[in-house]
Amino acid sequence: MMKLTILGCYAATPRTLTNPTSQLLEIKNHMFLIDCGEGTQVQLRKHKIKFSRINHIFISHLHGDHFFGLPGLVSTFRLLGREKELHVYGPKGIKEAITLLLKLGDSWTNYNLYFHELTAKESVLVYEDDKVTVETIPLNHRVYTNGYLFKEKIGQRKLNIEVAEKYKIDKLYYQNIKNGKDITLDSGKTIPNSELTFSPDVPMSYAFCSDTAYKPDIVPIIKNATVLYHESTFLHNEEELAKKTKHATAKEAAVIAAEARVGTLVLGHYSTRYKSIELFKTEAKEVFGNVRLAEDGKVFEF
Amino acid sequence: MMKLTILGCYAATPRTLTNPTSQLLEIKNHMFLIDCGEGTQVQLRKHKIKFSRINHIFISHLHGDHFFGLPGLVSTFRLLGREKELHVYGPKGIKEAITLLLKLGDSWTNYNLYFHELTAKESVLVYEDDKVTVETIPLNHRVYTNGYLFKEKIGQRKLNIEVAEKYKIDKLYYQNIKNGKDITLDSGKTIPNSELTFSPDVPMSYAFCSDTAYKPDIVPIIKNATVLYHESTFLHNEEELAKKTKHATAKEAAVIAAEARVGTLVLGHYSTRYKSIELFKTEAKEVFGNVRLAEDGKVFEF
Repeated sequence: MMKLTILGCYAATPRTLTNPTSQLLEIKNHMFLIDCGEGTQVQLRKHKIKFSRINHIFISHLHGDHFFGLPGLVSTFRLLGREKELHVYGPKGIKEAITLLLKLGDSWTNYNLYFHELTAKESVLVYEDDKVTVETIPLNHRVYTNGYLFKEKIGQRKLNIEVAEKYKIDKLYYQNIKNGKDITLDSGKTIPNSELTFSPDVPMSYAFCSDTAYKPDIVPIIKNATVLYHESTFLHNEEELAKKTKHATAKEAAVIAAEARVGTLVLGHYSTRYKSIELFKTEAKEVFGNVRLAEDGKVFEF
Repeated sequence: MMKLTILGCYAATPRTLTNPTSQLLEIKNHMFLIDCGEGTQVQLRKHKIKFSRINHIFISHLHGDHFFGLPGLVSTFRLLGREKELHVYGPKGIKEAITLLLKLGDSWTNYNLYFHELTAKESVLVYEDDKVTVETIPLNHRVYTNGYLFKEKIGQRKLNIEVAEKYKIDKLYYQNIKNGKDITLDSGKTIPNSELTFSPDVPMSYAFCSDTAYKPDIVPIIKNATVLYHESTFLHNEEELAKKTKHATAKEAAVIAAEARVGTLVLGHYSTRYKSIELFKTEAKEVFGNVRLAEDGKVFEF
């Protein structure tokens, strides 16, 4: 199960009722913060997110609407007495910016703050543990920008407890069975692993792509993702403006979703010029069936 | 008349219902923004303030709760198509911080942005036109900090139109009269200016003092100010914590107000540890009579 909380999904500037980009992805007991526009820490409070559960922050690019909430969040962690280390992933320059602001305020963190600065133009692995990986998705925007692909690793096989008990297999062997081993009974009979286990859950994945112009060469990277969040700043009748500002339209996002055969497309990063966001869904659905609209405060479970 | 809009008046971090420091002072047709904590631009929108009317921003110090809203506001001015120049006053380092953030986002302003960096330890004049002056008030905080004293200049004398008409004085002479000149009639008789005019309005002044430890040597600078905003992060039973963190208590703020013989004391910059802010007023009123409490969204007219 993945849980995605949209803290903000509008372009350009924070407004009274709309927030710039920030999302929280819960996957395999991690709470990954993705982008951090101004006001993100207030959005986290509104959603009663425990600040201490956030240990990794992924920044797509250094435009204000994706990044200007980070200095305040880093400072608030300090004021809250954080001791755990914090890891920030983002374009080169992010370390200089944050450390300069902390220096000017003589407000160094009392926790270890690690910056993982990105410069690669191809997709690179930026985080890995035994449960998940995070890779970059190189995007095409006015400044150096990466999306992020969060992938569960395939899990252990699941023990079929009824079969194991039928053969009176000692619990000591259960871990071996989950690891895929066959079992030889005292009688000499071998029970194949396939009889003792079920397949593990299909690993889920989440691809975050914002901000970017239409960029079909991300398709192989995000192929078959469970969920794709793709920016759609404009409707397709503003195709030229989208190109000029290196943003995508709802139709273009849907084409990417269709070509990558993702499970669900979530649209967001709407220009505030639109009174209703329903038109984005209508436009995208002409190309791709399963479209959801991000909205500030919305929680998706996949 | 001065109008003071409290955009935020709480210490430390933005929260769901409280905002860090920012104020808007309307004086002599100016709209001066004082401090700019995270979320200030949203507060400005909530109060339907025309962004284009803000041409001068005064930053007291470079702690996040007074400053982290500035990069976003400067960027939003650009997105709104601002052409008028903007002047930012604040501690040395503010220019480097803002320009680095703009550079990283490749988001240079399309309007002229001037930084007036402060390093002086004594009070200095930072702004002057024919109607107002702005001087710094050196404060004592953990980093280099200035308050600001906004003063109306004494205006022209006011024409007593009835007297002028009684003597059939040509309107061409009215400006001379307002400038304080006597008038000699064709008959040779001289009418003294005091008979032709009323005194101008008493000039008003606003002293903003946050953040600071108790610092009695600001008293001569803010003497007789119409309004003093003085931080009171703590109540006096937390005097030791106030000293340690270089903040003031409500009682200390009131002592400053009394010694400076100001007209009104406005308290603010409350620690979020307090459930009710009424206690700040109660404590201050034991020392000084005319105490008002700042609250986010409150508008004072003086």
